[in-house]
Amino acid sequence: MEPFRLEVDSYRKLLDKYITTEDENSLYQAEQFSKISMQKNILPEEIIHIHIQALKDLYPDLPCEIDKSLNFLLETMISYGLAHQEFQTLREKQG
Amino acid sequence: MEPFRLEVDSYRKLLDKYITTEDENSLYQAEQFSKISMQKNILPEEIIHIHIQALKDLYPDLPCEIDKSLNFLLETMISYGLAHQEFQTLREKQG
Repeated sequence: MEPFRLEVDSYRKLLDKYITTEDENSLYQAEQFSKISMQKNILPEEIIHIHIQALKDLYPDLPCEIDKSLNFLLETMISYGLAHQEFQTLREKQG
Repeated sequence: MEPFRLEVDSYRKLLDKYITTEDENSLYQAEQFSKISMQKNILPEEIIHIHIQALKDLYPDLPCEIDKSLNFLLETMISYGLAHQEFQTLREKQG
């Protein structure tokens, strides 16, 4: 399975559990997911992309306004992603 | 008006325009919004918070699953926010 699909599957399971149970542990899992994602050099806009796909898997009839709003959000994250890449480069230089 | 509300109002107008028209210029505006937000030291999870509030303003009957899913997404962005703060500190040190 391609890496993106693996990330989506993992995120979707956590998201589904949180939506169903709303427990604190699921939120902790979200934090862990993002820490591991950062270690894998996954950028913030890619997290939004994973979120969109997981949401579409869970709700195939997602209203198109929600879908469009998430595309817009993804676009806003691209600048943050560029800053994040710059940060990773700086940190690597510093060892 | 408090700063958060101003950001939400500005974002909501752009988001609404994008959802209605889906034009490329609105996506460019999203990019500009995030660049200005970074200059104001707004963190990625705060962008998610602004997005949630703008979406609730536009769609007061937002399905609770969507609302919950966005809370989960916000949680995943916190680690990225911490990295972003570290990046800002490093950049300030370097002048």
